[in-house]
Amino acid sequence: MSRLPLCSLLAAIVLFGAEPGVWNVAPPPPASWQRDRIADLSHRRKAFAERIGESAMLLLYAAEPRNYAGDVDWPYRQENDFFYLTGIAQAGLSLVLLPGGAGAHEILFLPQADPARETWTGHMLSAAEARSISGIQDVADAASLPGFLAAALPRARAFLNPPATNAAEPAVPPVADLYMLLPERPNPEYTRERQFAAQLGAAGPGVAIQDATPIFTALREIKSPRETDLIQHAIDITAEAFQRAFEAARPGAWEYEIQAQFEFTFLRRDGHWGYPCIVGAGRNATTLHYESNRDRIAAGDLVLMDDGAEFAGYSADVTRTIPADGRFTPEQAEIYRLVWDAQQAGIRAARPGHAMSGAPESIDSAAAEVLRRGLVRLGLMTEASSTPQFRVWLNHGVSHPIGLNVHDPGGRELRDGMVVTVEPGLYFRADALDGLPATPANEKFIAAVRPAFERYKGIGIRIEDDVLISAGEPKVLSAAIPSRLEEVEQAIARLRQAPHI
Amino acid sequence: MSRLPLCSLLAAIVLFGAEPGVWNVAPPPPASWQRDRIADLSHRRKAFAERIGESAMLLLYAAEPRNYAGDVDWPYRQENDFFYLTGIAQAGLSLVLLPGGAGAHEILFLPQADPARETWTGHMLSAAEARSISGIQDVADAASLPGFLAAALPRARAFLNPPATNAAEPAVPPVADLYMLLPERPNPEYTRERQFAAQLGAAGPGVAIQDATPIFTALREIKSPRETDLIQHAIDITAEAFQRAFEAARPGAWEYEIQAQFEFTFLRRDGHWGYPCIVGAGRNATTLHYESNRDRIAAGDLVLMDDGAEFAGYSADVTRTIPADGRFTPEQAEIYRLVWDAQQAGIRAARPGHAMSGAPESIDSAAAEVLRRGLVRLGLMTEASSTPQFRVWLNHGVSHPIGLNVHDPGGRELRDGMVVTVEPGLYFRADALDGLPATPANEKFIAAVRPAFERYKGIGIRIEDDVLISAGEPKVLSAAIPSRLEEVEQAIARLRQAPHI
Repeated sequence: MSRLPLCSLLAAIVLFGAEPGVWNVAPPPPASWQRDRIADLSHRRKAFAERIGESAMLLLYAAEPRNYAGDVDWPYRQENDFFYLTGIAQAGLSLVLLPGGAGAHEILFLPQADPARETWTGHMLSAAEARSISGIQDVADAASLPGFLAAALPRARAFLNPPATNAAEPAVPPVADLYMLLPERPNPEYTRERQFAAQLGAAGPGVAIQDATPIFTALREIKSPRETDLIQHAIDITAEAFQRAFEAARPGAWEYEIQAQFEFTFLRRDGHWGYPCIVGAGRNATTLHYESNRDRIAAGDLVLMDDGAEFAGYSADVTRTIPADGRFTPEQAEIYRLVWDAQQAGIRAARPGHAMSGAPESIDSAAAEVLRRGLVRLGLMTEASSTPQFRVWLNHGVSHPIGLNVHDPGGRELRDGMVVTVEPGLYFRADALDGLPATPANEKFIAAVRPAFERYKGIGIRIEDDVLISAGEPKVLSAAIPSRLEEVEQAIARLRQAPHI
Repeated sequence: MSRLPLCSLLAAIVLFGAEPGVWNVAPPPPASWQRDRIADLSHRRKAFAERIGESAMLLLYAAEPRNYAGDVDWPYRQENDFFYLTGIAQAGLSLVLLPGGAGAHEILFLPQADPARETWTGHMLSAAEARSISGIQDVADAASLPGFLAAALPRARAFLNPPATNAAEPAVPPVADLYMLLPERPNPEYTRERQFAAQLGAAGPGVAIQDATPIFTALREIKSPRETDLIQHAIDITAEAFQRAFEAARPGAWEYEIQAQFEFTFLRRDGHWGYPCIVGAGRNATTLHYESNRDRIAAGDLVLMDDGAEFAGYSADVTRTIPADGRFTPEQAEIYRLVWDAQQAGIRAARPGHAMSGAPESIDSAAAEVLRRGLVRLGLMTEASSTPQFRVWLNHGVSHPIGLNVHDPGGRELRDGMVVTVEPGLYFRADALDGLPATPANEKFIAAVRPAFERYKGIGIRIEDDVLISAGEPKVLSAAIPSRLEEVEQAIARLRQAPHI
């Protein structure tokens, strides 16, 4: 008997012997992804055009490639708003919306495909392909953009220096308002927009330059059913990855090995991370955006994993904190249950009309109320109402929208169709009490909480789920990833005895 | 009998039943990595200082973070030359070398650590840590750089506007030559350098602005033993990953699933890719830098995999082309053997005094000679000496240096201590004969080779290894990854019957 059939037979037995359903694999991508793509994109462009009106123009640039080092670039990632209106993930394009245009109202400026270059770089979209992906019928050569802009914005002619062509100037009605991405917070992603706005402003009055960001914020905060499907799919991939992480995050493993399990699953399911993976063991769990993932997991450590797949541009955002040994210590369990109770309260508050934070009825205030009461009970606060005391243990917000970016735009008020995180945490950094200003109040606080602090020192716990706001009950899209303490311990035990998928 | 012991027992049997040594795991990182770090870095700075002389100054900036989308950045990657002289992978620093300085000859300008920010972003280096990593003793606050530069380059004072401080102006001798990274080929990585050079030039004469690139090229092309160790380790990680890829790249698998196997292994061994992974099946193997990895592998496909890990900044660069079915077809085998023979000839030519390309004795010419003869034999060229005919089937160079960048700088001449790729290939794109200019010579060529072309159409094969140039025999650092046709088929068969590691 040769070795091959024996091995296969034994492997089959082992797989059969495994607990059925221990490993859940992400389903195929949702049918709506491609089926409803054009409808979704067209609807967005129409909604945008209605908001800016017939005397306005929108100009969007595709993201530029990002350099890794030397002559190597990072993989290409499209700018979110450009992707939101076009569905196209290629560099070198521009989009113009011109609601009052005599002819075309939507024009995509596409770099000409160059077969000689494609041998080197891979396929570049043809005009037919760009039409087919985006539903935009008017596709022009990217080289004609300066001429087009000079016709639409005569003041821009001097600095655009459009190349002379034999083609007739496009018939473009006068533009009163030019919308571009000019967010208040400086971002290197929008350098070209800022330069163009500065040049146009210096060329004289006549066109009002407007920031398109608030309109995108208003449109993007409410997700279409197709978008919710895509977010759900990103979460399903994330859920598959968390199984591998629950199995692998044992004492002796390195944080980057757990990161590898996440990125492996994301890539294997045709996704990517939506933000760099965070795997923090022990004291690293007390750093919010710990990204070095270079330490070794020790016995007794908690491992905080804040990791989300991105699929078709849409990002999940999920955090679980698990005991490397498979069982929480009594102290870890006390804090874990408190954070979990707070998170459940936050999820219950995730309803239309409430807010993410601040308002009397908000996710943040619902979670904070539970945390404050619990911290007083555990001896970690002396006054439940003291915000300075509370901020020593939790100094981040507990909810933000997700979508095309892991921190998607959106207003504070919760509305039907938003998808937001609910992510309370508590962090007992070893130096948490050292940096407080030496006021009498602080000295009194420190003396009072020191004994409890010594008990919980080094613990960092965050639990984060993604919630669809709807008229009915809040829907936890990431519910498949265990979070209740007993279920976490059971899942770890189950996954650690099953063979890998 | 509970299920757990049964599973473990059977799993143990399966592992025991596997061919011993089927899966080779990368060894731990080389001891020289940390042991010889300071010696290596100090030696480089000294060599650089000697080349620029006592009236010159070098100014290097650490790479800036690269935006992914919205408020998410890519993981941080240091600029190669900054890393080469400092070993530090953190943003916000600058390095000044001042060989004729009255006091410090090497100064690192380091952003002040901010404990409040570290809660959010993770650890920032302290001055002691920066000293310990780099061996540079003089560490100044990054905020003092403008004042320092204004003292060293008085003409720069006007546009630097250094903040007024109580600190005394640093004693800096007059600088005649200012070296910065100003490579001829425009690269967004060096925008700050270009701006600074332009501002200084506009401020008047007095300081000669020099490009530091040629000096780095001369230094970096010869690898120290520690550098060779690190490249070997990156290759060892790559070799482990290729085993998973040989196993997984079967008909029905998606290209991105194979990419996931590479990136998983790279990350799991504390590495990263040195360039985006290339996995091209079928016709995608005929595209040189195919990076979309979105197609499905079909029966009969060749799968071209050009993938290399980066470890501690040093990148491997290896290509294998394997049959998805596990066996080459006769046509695939003919081309494969030809490319392999050419590669062996190229490796034999990889000796000091020869060149990478062009010279009578070069890697490129040795490989090309074998290819040209074989192509004539197979009916794919009519004249072995015709370069236009040859370039239809192979239009890339077959050798470049590797190191801190996958395309590392280096001269054409091979010298003891260089590490270079040897990577011939042949590519029979379905449209390869369509785009040739309609000359009588081409029409004759096309008519003559058409029958053979139809036989090999769609095949794309590249075989790439990393070779250390030395006074003795060329050393193939990537020899552990099977490349001879029979060994490739045997490795696929062996790995596909062994359980995964």
